[in-house]
Amino acid sequence: MSAMLQENPAGLMTSRQELIASYQRIRDASAAICRPLNRDDYQIQSIAETSPPKWHLAHVTWFFETFVLQDFLPGYRPFNPAYGYLFNSYYQTVGKMHERARRGLLSRPTVEQVYHYRADVDKRMLDLLSGIDESRWQNMASRVILGLHHEQQHQELLYMDIKHNLWSNPERPAYLKRHRQDIERPCGLKWEQRQGGLVTIGLEAAGFAFDNERPRHNIWLEPHRLSSRLVSNAEYLDFIEDGGYKRPELWLSDGWSHILSHQWKSPLYWQKHENQWHEFTLYGLEMLNPAAPVAHVSYYEADAFAHWAGKRLPLEAELERKLLELPLKGHFSDSGVFHPQPGEGQFYGALWEWTASPYVAYPRFKPLPGSMGEYNGKFMCNQWVLRGGSCITQPDHIRPTYRNFFYPHDRWQFAGIRLAEDL
Amino acid sequence: MSAMLQENPAGLMTSRQELIASYQRIRDASAAICRPLNRDDYQIQSIAETSPPKWHLAHVTWFFETFVLQDFLPGYRPFNPAYGYLFNSYYQTVGKMHERARRGLLSRPTVEQVYHYRADVDKRMLDLLSGIDESRWQNMASRVILGLHHEQQHQELLYMDIKHNLWSNPERPAYLKRHRQDIERPCGLKWEQRQGGLVTIGLEAAGFAFDNERPRHNIWLEPHRLSSRLVSNAEYLDFIEDGGYKRPELWLSDGWSHILSHQWKSPLYWQKHENQWHEFTLYGLEMLNPAAPVAHVSYYEADAFAHWAGKRLPLEAELERKLLELPLKGHFSDSGVFHPQPGEGQFYGALWEWTASPYVAYPRFKPLPGSMGEYNGKFMCNQWVLRGGSCITQPDHIRPTYRNFFYPHDRWQFAGIRLAEDL
Amino acid sequence: MSAMLQENPAGLMTSRQELIASYQRIRDASAAICRPLNRDDYQIQSIAETSPPKWHLAHVTWFFETFVLQDFLPGYRPFNPAYGYLFNSYYQTVGKMHERARRGLLSRPTVEQVYHYRADVDKRMLDLLSGIDESRWQNMASRVILGLHHEQQHQELLYMDIKHNLWSNPERPAYLKRHRQDIERPCGLKWEQRQGGLVTIGLEAAGFAFDNERPRHNIWLEPHRLSSRLVSNAEYLDFIEDGGYKRPELWLSDGWSHILSHQWKSPLYWQKHENQWHEFTLYGLEMLNPAAPVAHVSYYEADAFAHWAGKRLPLEAELERKLLELPLKGHFSDSGVFHPQPGEGQFYGALWEWTASPYVAYPRFKPLPGSMGEYNGKFMCNQWVLRGGSCITQPDHIRPTYRNFFYPHDRWQFAGIRLAEDL
Amino acid sequence: MSAMLQENPAGLMTSRQELIASYQRIRDASAAICRPLNRDDYQIQSIAETSPPKWHLAHVTWFFETFVLQDFLPGYRPFNPAYGYLFNSYYQTVGKMHERARRGLLSRPTVEQVYHYRADVDKRMLDLLSGIDESRWQNMASRVILGLHHEQQHQELLYMDIKHNLWSNPERPAYLKRHRQDIERPCGLKWEQRQGGLVTIGLEAAGFAFDNERPRHNIWLEPHRLSSRLVSNAEYLDFIEDGGYKRPELWLSDGWSHILSHQWKSPLYWQKHENQWHEFTLYGLEMLNPAAPVAHVSYYEADAFAHWAGKRLPLEAELERKLLELPLKGHFSDSGVFHPQPGEGQFYGALWEWTASPYVAYPRFKPLPGSMGEYNGKFMCNQWVLRGGSCITQPDHIRPTYRNFFYPHDRWQFAGIRLAEDL
Repeated sequence: MSAMLQENPAGLMTSRQELIASYQRIRDASAAICRPLNRDDYQIQSIAETSPPKWHLAHVTWFFETFVLQDFLPGYRPFNPAYGYLFNSYYQTVGKMHERARRGLLSRPTVEQVYHYRADVDKRMLDLLSGIDESRWQNMASRVILGLHHEQQHQELLYMDIKHNLWSNPERPAYLKRHRQDIERPCGLKWEQRQGGLVTIGLEAAGFAFDNERPRHNIWLEPHRLSSRLVSNAEYLDFIEDGGYKRPELWLSDGWSHILSHQWKSPLYWQKHENQWHEFTLYGLEMLNPAAPVAHVSYYEADAFAHWAGKRLPLEAELERKLLELPLKGHFSDSGVFHPQPGEGQFYGALWEWTASPYVAYPRFKPLPGSMGEYNGKFMCNQWVLRGGSCITQPDHIRPTYRNFFYPHDRWQFAGIRLAEDL
Repeated sequence: MSAMLQENPAGLMTSRQELIASYQRIRDASAAICRPLNRDDYQIQSIAETSPPKWHLAHVTWFFETFVLQDFLPGYRPFNPAYGYLFNSYYQTVGKMHERARRGLLSRPTVEQVYHYRADVDKRMLDLLSGIDESRWQNMASRVILGLHHEQQHQELLYMDIKHNLWSNPERPAYLKRHRQDIERPCGLKWEQRQGGLVTIGLEAAGFAFDNERPRHNIWLEPHRLSSRLVSNAEYLDFIEDGGYKRPELWLSDGWSHILSHQWKSPLYWQKHENQWHEFTLYGLEMLNPAAPVAHVSYYEADAFAHWAGKRLPLEAELERKLLELPLKGHFSDSGVFHPQPGEGQFYGALWEWTASPYVAYPRFKPLPGSMGEYNGKFMCNQWVLRGGSCITQPDHIRPTYRNFFYPHDRWQFAGIRLAEDL
Repeated sequence: MSAMLQENPAGLMTSRQELIASYQRIRDASAAICRPLNRDDYQIQSIAETSPPKWHLAHVTWFFETFVLQDFLPGYRPFNPAYGYLFNSYYQTVGKMHERARRGLLSRPTVEQVYHYRADVDKRMLDLLSGIDESRWQNMASRVILGLHHEQQHQELLYMDIKHNLWSNPERPAYLKRHRQDIERPCGLKWEQRQGGLVTIGLEAAGFAFDNERPRHNIWLEPHRLSSRLVSNAEYLDFIEDGGYKRPELWLSDGWSHILSHQWKSPLYWQKHENQWHEFTLYGLEMLNPAAPVAHVSYYEADAFAHWAGKRLPLEAELERKLLELPLKGHFSDSGVFHPQPGEGQFYGALWEWTASPYVAYPRFKPLPGSMGEYNGKFMCNQWVLRGGSCITQPDHIRPTYRNFFYPHDRWQFAGIRLAEDL
Repeated sequence: MSAMLQENPAGLMTSRQELIASYQRIRDASAAICRPLNRDDYQIQSIAETSPPKWHLAHVTWFFETFVLQDFLPGYRPFNPAYGYLFNSYYQTVGKMHERARRGLLSRPTVEQVYHYRADVDKRMLDLLSGIDESRWQNMASRVILGLHHEQQHQELLYMDIKHNLWSNPERPAYLKRHRQDIERPCGLKWEQRQGGLVTIGLEAAGFAFDNERPRHNIWLEPHRLSSRLVSNAEYLDFIEDGGYKRPELWLSDGWSHILSHQWKSPLYWQKHENQWHEFTLYGLEMLNPAAPVAHVSYYEADAFAHWAGKRLPLEAELERKLLELPLKGHFSDSGVFHPQPGEGQFYGALWEWTASPYVAYPRFKPLPGSMGEYNGKFMCNQWVLRGGSCITQPDHIRPTYRNFFYPHDRWQFAGIRLAEDL
């Protein structure tokens, strides 16, 4: 989930006013996500993969401090020299960093101090955004935009991590109190036939994108079908009841080992309670909605389900070509409903869709110079691509070419299953 | 550190007024220990052995609720039914419990809710203490006294755990801001010759004691010498500089494996900074005081040091006989100085002293009936006895017969080394 | 290394005599590989990934027993019913199996019993090969051919595992006593420019192939260059001396974690001895030959080296297209030299070449029915493709389309590095 | 199981002829124990605690080479310089050593080479025993006696380890083919009342003993009862069927954690087969004999059983006083029956008896100078004393004062349960 942004000065036509407005809006959004939290919630790190909300709030601020203020504000001195160590995530060229799995052990800086840090950096950022002279505007603006996309990625992580952190409490406390009633519209599965041939994927146009979305390149696709919506909880329940978690022949070898050693018998967040399946959501423990898409499955589970259904997962290129044909609309975080709903299509939003494509470099992908590009490819191993965004993705953060990626065993992200088949 | 208290009604001559005063004083003391904390500090659990301060505050309250209110207040209903699971430490007959290593993942109940819980239980406890009729007073009073000693044990744990939790932050924040100047009185080591023969140890007298201090029994001691103070940092530094951590012949076999696999090269909380040894204390990182006693060593280190010095550690019976001869005075927590100071004697207070005695049952030790006695002996394996209390022990909590116990690798408790030798 | 074979009856024009001769030759070759072993060597399993030679000899025999004798010899009863459990590797539809990591704990059956088992199965196999009636010949022959390819895969594993097992002995004993003198011909690195465009890869022709090599399909390649030989020890030493193992910016994130936690500072089998690099080979510990190709590197190391060199690893399709242009000749196991030598080309033989291609299914890849196809795709996750065979590969076992695969951290296989670059 | 021997020259009145005869007899006994083994059995190390039989045979030989030949044979050069590293068990002052858990990975030296090593050392030892001049005889003889006791300890380990190694094979192969019929004499449990008071334990007399048996010293005992035989399988089965392994209140806290994490539900070597309990013995898998003593239990299980029975385990001093009253007779290895049988008494032989005494130093215990004494006390932590010998102990190896010791979770040794109670 952490690809660096590629700077594309040509595409920047943002005005100062627009960028200042975006900065304020996006920075405020992070604080808004944390507003329903109790003070104690800010501190929790339930597993090594999650971070305490407090840490996220500080880290994204450190990003602006390190890559904008330090580079563009003459004589800038860090708000607190210790923060460079505490809030660096993985930028090894910037310096050493605190061990990831120990972020939850930092009671200092406190939540107040972190908000103070944010306010201080915001003040200087806004001054700089208004005051920097024109000759340096372009360079700085592209860094700021990058920082804003980075913060939006962490906003999605905030939802994911808060959900997992609360789940770790046996009381299963809710993040938000009420929930819009689920629409239980049963919706039949249809199949769209799609042509193959030589196509292009990846972003060519000016504008913002992460570097892993470039360069645009040719790829050969075979004719195929895509299903008209995500796999539902009801369908996934059929898989479970048909012995899905007990039949090794359905699973990748590594997947079978993983579910055995972790004793997985259902998606993350499913819990049987008095013989009725429930699902933990950001609204607490709820009855499982059969019509809603199955969420929080790993690649291993997605692949096993597809195998069981006699289908396969789509390639990332197949999904990208489909996404390019659709308006960029869907169930994103602006809906205010932070759980996937029954529906049709669901190519954008609802849940990230696991693809059958390992996360690797596109042809001619080149590392960028400097810290920004230090790790362009460093996550391109052992992970798989997911596409399309989810109900906790900011709507202005997604693109048809966007490549999200997770390890095949990860499932705390909002991920679901779309089926495909060969023609 | 968690032996149960033995109820000894015969010894209870406490008046209602006295017990009410004790209850208020001891309960207030727990809150006072937490007063210097930031809200975020309440949440930290740095290792499985420590607990978040918030958890301690709730657990000791649960103890009164479970073993006093539920047994003596007719119709009492728990403040929150979930707390029985969350705040039970290890009382298996009372019910299931939350996994110890995951206490730091509980953001709910919040700190406020825990203080609210304390206030609610305190109110009912005080009502009960005033109102219970005379026929049940005796029984209840003995449970309350037990609960108060239990809370005092957790007060010591609070200091220990807060220290370790803060140490886990690379910024090494201080619990308290200033520290009384160390008295660097160099003090020569002397040896007291002590007779052997058939002696008795263990508590016979009426009055309060943990069950592991009873029954009083005979034991044969050989003539020996005890050193006149604890081993100093300067002496321990000699051991280190003489290759103490590199010479397997000085170590117990399990100790040698342990220091290799954990890469121990000095006591816990020692840190070399610009070629000068420092020590982390509740006052932050300080220069190592050569005259102060070495603290936070494991049994393995204490034993290796004694081996290197050509001496041995004292037996618990040897120390108990000595403690019986001394006034119950020393550097306890009422001094307000939460770090051991240079001094003489130091039999009481300063640091718990590792003994050469494994923690086992005294002859004719019998398990008590019911939950209170469920686990009387359950920790009597793999641990060693420590004696004498420390600078974070409440002065009215210690006795000559008091048996503290830890695993030989534990060192986050305030433990030091006294030497002995055979005659 | 364990993809199943695809049965392709159309391609089988093998006569009985030819197949009987192949059977005898290939079965004998397994025994010949073990001839230099001491009896004790048969028993060793140095890591979970390797197997004791004794186990390999039994497992490949079990394969013929289970998939040929049981299916084609009426009334066949297993040589020993326990062997189905002990020598099943991972065929879950056939039944339960002994835990992989515990193969080295089986002292029974003994080596003699295993050779007896081989002799018994061989006798029945040869009878069956001569005697089966024509109507069933085709079906059985394709199974036998599959079993022979399977045994050739295990012959390569025998060399790999024997090497690692001997390496685990601090005395570094040799498998074979003498070694052909290395030819230290220094050989300059050249680059061949190669066209891109729409090409096909995968096997279409009749004949034998593993299922993962099919179906033939289109793929788009960009123009590129391939280097004229494998990376040499001298070049890899430059990487090490330039801080290759100390510079996180050169490594994949997972690779960096792996080399830190495993303390890797050179390829497997390199050992510094009196300030001179040596390399453990099947001939014992030898001086490192600078002109020979670097061997036994992981994908992580291959990728980091390429990154350091400003190049990349080739795609599997790039290599397949190149291999198709070359005669199927190279340094294979028939040379009798079981260590890579300096040379040019080296596309076939010498060392398996890591590619930049994750091991995934080709388009329209379909699982086969039954046990033979149970696991066709089950290893298609978390592994990378290697191409071209090595000095321990049987020359009649390799094809241009052959896809070997290992985890990115594996390095006990005979794997090396070829560089590529974009045009 | 590895305490060093104390040299006690005063006690040595052994003649040359006698010692030569002992040497030959005891060395031959090691080879005799291995005679039923297949060649492959020599190589197995099923867990880190066991060693391959081949390693035992070499290690005891290395002991004579290192501590006798090197010290007493002028100009002696080691048989093979590598053996000092491979076959040193834990004598750190002698030099570095091969990692214990990797002993099973040594295929070289081979079994033949190890027997050759034994023969070579034996030849030199016998020459030295005949030829050394009188002035050095005494010193050398005491070392040789020590080496012979050391070898007898390893003979017991050979039986234990062979049993566990064979058990690790799912076929459960037998070490010996037939087994004397069990005598199923039901035998009632009686209790002997025993006086307390000031007693002495430990060896004072001249003669051979391990250093941990000295010095003789006073100890105070309370009056108590000892049961008249070991706990039987039938009695232990009652414990299991009464929920023994499911009731935390019966267990030490560390024991409860251990049985949960290791999923222990019965003694080691018990196996339910078609609803009937069987026990793996050196004679293979046999029906459980209800009248035979329960074997291969850990301290945790012994203590939980005693707790369940309302009794306790005896102290080592209690057992030593009892053993001193009895003739040194019992079911030892000379019976040729390597499994405990139903019987009465059973104080000597049958099974080692867990005591309630942690393994610590006796008062005034002093480390000996040099390598022989390097580790006299190094195992005196975390282990418990066992007394009385077992059916695999050599009859001339046991004494009333003999202190065996194991970790509380160990159970591959031949250990059983005797009950005691306070009066």
